[in-house]
Amino acid sequence: MLLRVRAAVAQLAAGLGAQPPAEPRGGGAGAGRGSPPPAAFCRPAFLQLTPEELRRADDHTGRAVQSPRDSRCRLPWSTGYAEVINAGKSQHNEDQACCEVVFVEQRSREGSGEKGFYFHYWALFDGHAGSGAAVMASERLHLHICEQLRDLVEILQDPSPPPICLPPDTRTGSADPNQVSYAEDGGEVPNDAVPRFHLEKAVSHESLVIGAIENAFKHMDDQIEQERASQHLAGGCCALAAIYLMGKFYVANAGDSRAIIIRNGEIIPMSREFTPETERQRLQFLALLRPELLGKEFTHLEFPRRIQPKELGKKMLYRDQNMNGWAYKKIEEDDLKFPLIFGEGKKARMMATIGVTRGLGDHDLKVFSSNIHIKPFLSCFPEVRVYDLTQYEHCPDDVLVLGTDGLWDVTNDKEVAGVVMEVLTSYEPNDPCRYTMVAQELVVRSRGVLKERGWRLANDKLGSGDDISVFVIPLGGPGNYT
Amino acid sequence: MLLRVRAAVAQLAAGLGAQPPAEPRGGGAGAGRGSPPPAAFCRPAFLQLTPEELRRADDHTGRAVQSPRDSRCRLPWSTGYAEVINAGKSQHNEDQACCEVVFVEQRSREGSGEKGFYFHYWALFDGHAGSGAAVMASERLHLHICEQLRDLVEILQDPSPPPICLPPDTRTGSADPNQVSYAEDGGEVPNDAVPRFHLEKAVSHESLVIGAIENAFKHMDDQIEQERASQHLAGGCCALAAIYLMGKFYVANAGDSRAIIIRNGEIIPMSREFTPETERQRLQFLALLRPELLGKEFTHLEFPRRIQPKELGKKMLYRDQNMNGWAYKKIEEDDLKFPLIFGEGKKARMMATIGVTRGLGDHDLKVFSSNIHIKPFLSCFPEVRVYDLTQYEHCPDDVLVLGTDGLWDVTNDKEVAGVVMEVLTSYEPNDPCRYTMVAQELVVRSRGVLKERGWRLANDKLGSGDDISVFVIPLGGPGNYT
Repeated sequence: MLLRVRAAVAQLAAGLGAQPPAEPRGGGAGAGRGSPPPAAFCRPAFLQLTPEELRRADDHTGRAVQSPRDSRCRLPWSTGYAEVINAGKSQHNEDQACCEVVFVEQRSREGSGEKGFYFHYWALFDGHAGSGAAVMASERLHLHICEQLRDLVEILQDPSPPPICLPPDTRTGSADPNQVSYAEDGGEVPNDAVPRFHLEKAVSHESLVIGAIENAFKHMDDQIEQERASQHLAGGCCALAAIYLMGKFYVANAGDSRAIIIRNGEIIPMSREFTPETERQRLQFLALLRPELLGKEFTHLEFPRRIQPKELGKKMLYRDQNMNGWAYKKIEEDDLKFPLIFGEGKKARMMATIGVTRGLGDHDLKVFSSNIHIKPFLSCFPEVRVYDLTQYEHCPDDVLVLGTDGLWDVTNDKEVAGVVMEVLTSYEPNDPCRYTMVAQELVVRSRGVLKERGWRLANDKLGSGDDISVFVIPLGGPGNYT
Repeated sequence: MLLRVRAAVAQLAAGLGAQPPAEPRGGGAGAGRGSPPPAAFCRPAFLQLTPEELRRADDHTGRAVQSPRDSRCRLPWSTGYAEVINAGKSQHNEDQACCEVVFVEQRSREGSGEKGFYFHYWALFDGHAGSGAAVMASERLHLHICEQLRDLVEILQDPSPPPICLPPDTRTGSADPNQVSYAEDGGEVPNDAVPRFHLEKAVSHESLVIGAIENAFKHMDDQIEQERASQHLAGGCCALAAIYLMGKFYVANAGDSRAIIIRNGEIIPMSREFTPETERQRLQFLALLRPELLGKEFTHLEFPRRIQPKELGKKMLYRDQNMNGWAYKKIEEDDLKFPLIFGEGKKARMMATIGVTRGLGDHDLKVFSSNIHIKPFLSCFPEVRVYDLTQYEHCPDDVLVLGTDGLWDVTNDKEVAGVVMEVLTSYEPNDPCRYTMVAQELVVRSRGVLKERGWRLANDKLGSGDDISVFVIPLGGPGNYT
């Protein structure tokens, strides 16, 4: 399997400047796309689309489902992937995807022959208001993760607890206990004499990886900010990434994509969505503390609907940053402003502008015809959930599914699990195509079929008109493929 | 059963001034304690302790367990209750408790013969740094809840969705649809013509009750603030309250007390604890946005231990308000300040001062020998969880257990469930004493037995030296008792 995967020694250019990554991402010779021209239409490199295929993938009318083809571009672990373009809501498919095996080389003293480890990486990026952020994130996020992990190579491979403090020399991950542990009273105590100072908090290896992923998202966002002018990067994107490292999956989510594990028919949510509704209290709290961020247009209070001037003095339901329930308040002048959070479900918007509250990019996004910036309310930090693959026996039908909201808008965990089990049953357990078949079926069922009244699902409800992208990652076979 | 319960028509004095409640809380004639002198030692009225019994309850050496006695003061629903004083950490028992049946009278036009409903109420208050806040909250919180519910009497009894907007007249809960609903375009549309305007958010009856409870906590906190000088109210308290209203339990928690339901042997957590650890990110976010609240003494960053000046320039693990994982940063001058959150588990403290981050009171609390106030970081708002009693068939062994941290510090959900099932099995299902026996056993097992080396549990570990208070509320019999 590895023959078809580039185990790239990923290195970000020093200073995270405007250079393309030292190694284009995997997928075979000729597939790298380099630095695309601004807002160029592109699809994931691993699809290896010919110009003709690219045109077909870009067709809103046919909405042909795209997958890697067996012979040319099998993904690690026989991962299944499928995608389809939207029904016309944007010119091109604004989803992007990346699948890589990345080698993390220990930051060396001399740059020669150092230790390291691999991680596997799958990610979906759901762009909005332009494709630039999603394209750049799909090319670089894994390199930022690699960069963050480079200082941890020795620490993660050492079974003893991570050192709390390291010498200033950044070029070593030395675990010499005499150098790295100090007792509270100022005396130096080797680790083996006092295993853990009683006022010292235990920090796990796992939480170092989580911290590395969190900071990688932040650096990715910073890079988009710095290069957005020179690279003409427009828009923003949700980011959902799965990292397999030393027996554990780390699923990092910033936005409204979604990941679930299906194990022996059981559903294990591996992410939650970040929207104006789920993050209401964080946003209201920020707006209360920094009212200048609202201009004079918005109120941090939430109301179930717009208030009209003639309703002044009446009592209306509201909730503030402290409340989960609703209560009545007398309507005052200030309450006539537009609510910071407004709308319900998929229509919920922050400052009447955006429906997701975490992600990358969006540095220039403003409220329509105003000078009010959205970015201060958006968080680029993901929530990272961990799944320990070594804790369970996995069979070939156990999978991790990653999907953009195009998938989840018209289906749910249970239906997805049903499709997964149904499709996998009809292929031999050792057929490497079976996960691609699942991904395709998931995309087709969410897209629906074009009828007179638009794209329709089997139950005649409206299909998803959004871009749809899905990874189906088998959990049963990592040992065979790495 | 109701014969022994005061179905108080609870009314807070207008303006929530310094007057005692119009009706002292229930428990039978003569049990009201009125306005206690500052920091007076008192126990829950429903215990009806004689002066001699009160002295015995106040004895740190004997630590006798207190419960209502059958003949004089049975609690609604045969609720079990038991408490014990601490092992000497404070002069008196700083826990307080309240159990009431409260009548909510609709706010009337004339004050005559109006509609209303009852709610059942159980609450525990775990005081710190003085008893004043806990005593006052135990006397008043249910009256504040009652006050908040008074405007909702008609609305909650009307099965149609709550009106979004009410006429300014506070004296009516009128549900006349022509008066209360307006469409977005400015035209008035009666409720029955347009059931719910499509840009209008649905608000449930349940969420109105949650909002009422949340605001009642806020008003309780405001009252403590206003009266703390005149009433010499010292300290603060955690508050855990269970309200049974129209078939549902609302469990409201602000602090580190804990509630669980045990149903058919299954454990259902009904609260979570609010501590510097569980609320770290909220506290760090506030500190970041309002650094002046930290004086110049604290940093909003968290470190696993104190940093020493000589470590400047080295790299240390940290996390900020965005992170769940840990990462290394170069130590700078500012990092030498004391971390906002420090310590682990029961020893975690905010600004080296307090181990709970929600509750009532504490308006004067400052960091030791400084002018830095703690209160801005504390939230008086509870988290409210709802349990619908009508969704399940309950047997006499199904209970809701409320306990202060004195209970939970030395035990866990599973052990408590074990004791509950063990004790209930040894009493007839219709024995009204059985829930009191459970409460007593839970208290005794957490307190332990006095041995040469202090209070010891059955496993010889140290027993809880804290005040311990426990309610055991049967879920199987509400219909029989109301």
